[in-house]
Amino acid sequence: MASPTVSFLLIIITTVLLPSPSSSLTSQPSNFFPSNKPPRFLGKHSHPIKTNHQQYRYETRYFFQPLDHFSFSDLPRFRQRYLINTDHWVGPSRLGPIFLYCGNEGDIEWFAVNTGFVWEIASRFGAMVLFPEHRYYGESMPYGSREEAYKNATTLSHLTTEQALADFAVLITDLKRNFSAEGCPVVLFGGSYGGMLAAWMRLKYPHIAVGALASSAPILQFEDIVPPETFYNIVSNSFKRESSSCFDTIKQSWNALTSEGQGKDGLQQLSKTFRLCRELKSVQDLTNWLDSAYSYLGMVNYPYSSNFLMPLPGHPIREVCRKIDGSPDGSSILDRIFNGVSIYYNYTGDVDCFQLDDDPHGMNGWNWQACTEMVMPMSSDRNTSMYPAYDWDYSAFGEKCRRDFQVTPRPRWITTEFGGHDIEHVLKFFGSNIIFSNGLLDPWSGGSVLKNISETIVALVMEEGAHHIDLRASTTEDPDWLVEQRATEIKLIEGWLDTYSKKMQATFTM
Amino acid sequence: MASPTVSFLLIIITTVLLPSPSSSLTSQPSNFFPSNKPPRFLGKHSHPIKTNHQQYRYETRYFFQPLDHFSFSDLPRFRQRYLINTDHWVGPSRLGPIFLYCGNEGDIEWFAVNTGFVWEIASRFGAMVLFPEHRYYGESMPYGSREEAYKNATTLSHLTTEQALADFAVLITDLKRNFSAEGCPVVLFGGSYGGMLAAWMRLKYPHIAVGALASSAPILQFEDIVPPETFYNIVSNSFKRESSSCFDTIKQSWNALTSEGQGKDGLQQLSKTFRLCRELKSVQDLTNWLDSAYSYLGMVNYPYSSNFLMPLPGHPIREVCRKIDGSPDGSSILDRIFNGVSIYYNYTGDVDCFQLDDDPHGMNGWNWQACTEMVMPMSSDRNTSMYPAYDWDYSAFGEKCRRDFQVTPRPRWITTEFGGHDIEHVLKFFGSNIIFSNGLLDPWSGGSVLKNISETIVALVMEEGAHHIDLRASTTEDPDWLVEQRATEIKLIEGWLDTYSKKMQATFTM
Repeated sequence: MASPTVSFLLIIITTVLLPSPSSSLTSQPSNFFPSNKPPRFLGKHSHPIKTNHQQYRYETRYFFQPLDHFSFSDLPRFRQRYLINTDHWVGPSRLGPIFLYCGNEGDIEWFAVNTGFVWEIASRFGAMVLFPEHRYYGESMPYGSREEAYKNATTLSHLTTEQALADFAVLITDLKRNFSAEGCPVVLFGGSYGGMLAAWMRLKYPHIAVGALASSAPILQFEDIVPPETFYNIVSNSFKRESSSCFDTIKQSWNALTSEGQGKDGLQQLSKTFRLCRELKSVQDLTNWLDSAYSYLGMVNYPYSSNFLMPLPGHPIREVCRKIDGSPDGSSILDRIFNGVSIYYNYTGDVDCFQLDDDPHGMNGWNWQACTEMVMPMSSDRNTSMYPAYDWDYSAFGEKCRRDFQVTPRPRWITTEFGGHDIEHVLKFFGSNIIFSNGLLDPWSGGSVLKNISETIVALVMEEGAHHIDLRASTTEDPDWLVEQRATEIKLIEGWLDTYSKKMQATFTM
Repeated sequence: MASPTVSFLLIIITTVLLPSPSSSLTSQPSNFFPSNKPPRFLGKHSHPIKTNHQQYRYETRYFFQPLDHFSFSDLPRFRQRYLINTDHWVGPSRLGPIFLYCGNEGDIEWFAVNTGFVWEIASRFGAMVLFPEHRYYGESMPYGSREEAYKNATTLSHLTTEQALADFAVLITDLKRNFSAEGCPVVLFGGSYGGMLAAWMRLKYPHIAVGALASSAPILQFEDIVPPETFYNIVSNSFKRESSSCFDTIKQSWNALTSEGQGKDGLQQLSKTFRLCRELKSVQDLTNWLDSAYSYLGMVNYPYSSNFLMPLPGHPIREVCRKIDGSPDGSSILDRIFNGVSIYYNYTGDVDCFQLDDDPHGMNGWNWQACTEMVMPMSSDRNTSMYPAYDWDYSAFGEKCRRDFQVTPRPRWITTEFGGHDIEHVLKFFGSNIIFSNGLLDPWSGGSVLKNISETIVALVMEEGAHHIDLRASTTEDPDWLVEQRATEIKLIEGWLDTYSKKMQATFTM
């Protein structure tokens, strides 16, 4: 069982890709989405928090990386942190594999602690374990400190996906040489944005990695590849399936919030209704808090109790809806909503009052990435979504990015650089050894690869799965399908390594 | 027949990849390779020269590219030139293919004029023809002018292979959208460095191009993948095969040159012997001129008369050796050498005196690339090579680059980014649709892919072929093997397009 501290941390790590139309970037007048905030993907707890990670042993090391792999500007190198464990590694002579987790947008120790799967299978494979940190996160700060790295658009300009992949490529190449392990196969792992990195790395650097397990990796959530309504529709459907009146109450609540907020002492009244620690400054802050809860609930709507993001009961959406629907007769819409989201934010009942956001204006790496390359269009359909209706508005989004970061997004760049359109044709005869694992409850699954593309680029789709749970440590409570899913993943990885070592042996005996 | 002007231009275009150990970067004292010059790959005629290209019709257009695709620095966009012809294109409704030549290190008009193969087959395929220019060459200058672009290491810093590939990717994606041609397949072509670009582009951007014809593309001429002696051994063997005394004479000539040069009035005497227009400033300038001739001869040692680089007889090395061996009794070594290289530099007999190098100190794009990413180790073996012995010395090379360009090379970067080691295993089950075409006479063939890797990544190896002759326009003098080679290439490309259109039809009828 993870400790409460760890459980809390999971929020940070796994909320990695939460979109926020409520913090959307429209500059048009709108009842629901005033343009007063940058997009938030990491949520409010995106600050490094020390944690108890004694369960996995690793050494912390540092590697000096060029800040810019793709130009020869005279920029200072930066210190990339990586975690390494060689306890189980059988070494170069036996072609001991190297398991590399593609660090994503956060402190790498968070990911290491919460990616038990990699640690658990390392001994079975005789593998080295590596967790390199993503540049501009955790301790891996260009220009010596977070403050300097996040100073302005110029210092942030090298926070890009391609640079991060090149960091991994350069690091692993150097490490392999130092270990005389050039012949050892590398297997990539990653969840969420990290899963995207793993898949893209296998595609772009096949000479460096023999395969990738890309868990909950929405590599198709760009441009027009999937409908922009996908994410919110999946969440909304999860609520509707439980109870259409619950769905309706939530759908009506946004207008109720606005009306209430506009009334005399409205913000004070709302702060009271929602038991906030500090008085609300705008209705927007509250809608952010609410729609985050629904989206996170969509991601962790497991049929059993969990503390993946928060300590939650099994079927948490069902429980939320029970509270909403089952509030005492005469309860207002907002009372019902409060009772519902208390399941998410206060299942343990320990919370006296709620903090909405402790640093709404802090610069945040993912916000920068969302305003540059990682432009994921998100809409909320006025009929099918329970969220406030919202049409993706790129020009307003760009305007907001220019205002917040003095940067203009490149919304077509990711599909130009990594593809995505027509992926089943493009990769049918190109590439190999990628597992796209997804749980259909996860709203991110809508932007992921859900069908086998070829014999070796496969989709593992779990009906009751949610956001990259397969990467987490096994527990005694794991349902059968999860146990089987992990067994399948192990078998596929064994297959890659087997093929690889046969090829190598054939070379040696030639 | 190409006009004399065009023939002259061919020197420029096809000498693209000539290595120069004679202009090597060692800082150690050496009889033969004093470190007074940066490496020269383009040769002396690397300036834009206007030419008669009326044989192929195209429109010249421009596209604004980000200077840095992989960061969000606030750098000015630059105007990339591209040539386009849609005369034969059957358009999007019939999935008309797009033939894209990957512009390499020179004026794109040179390459367009000298890549007749692409023009000739376009009508047969109903294809659009595109020749985008490589950044920092021709008219495609960042910062508005060549002078500004080549000002210093900072302005040059974005002259890299990855940026050039991204330019192609962004351009073609934009063009396809403008033509509503998203479904039209792109086929890549390229020779020499352009061939490397074509192969790498197919590997890195499979979603953008369905296949690549990479002619004379030495993608393995990096790090320790092939022995550094390969290039000069191939040239030397071509001479030795013709005549061992010829080989010996050349091998002895370097000492003779040095002795003569060191004598009283030695440089004056050498200038006379070699009929130079201006008096020699150093022996080095002369050795550069001589070893360039041998290396170029290696590249164009066709069994029939040609004017690929220069107007030359068939078996030009045989002719050179005839002159060297058959000089009148009592001829000095240097007289023999002069008689020999006159075949190369003055086969028509029109030259009164020889210009060695009109701009030895000019900054040159390829020199920058060689000093940053494109570090191709070259040695000359003291036994098997007829060139002066030289051991590749990376640290001296790096020193020289820092001195000349204030830049430190990254000698391992190309193999990290694009691979190369163990390529037959890496690509056996990864990637598809690449033709590596090579002629074994071409010294660059030693660093190229000469064996089939898979069913669809194939090597076309022509025993009597030389530097990317398959890309040139057909002539009535083409030998049978060349006609057959081109027919095979056409058939393979037809296969790629056929598979592609079947996949697309299957989608439409689904």
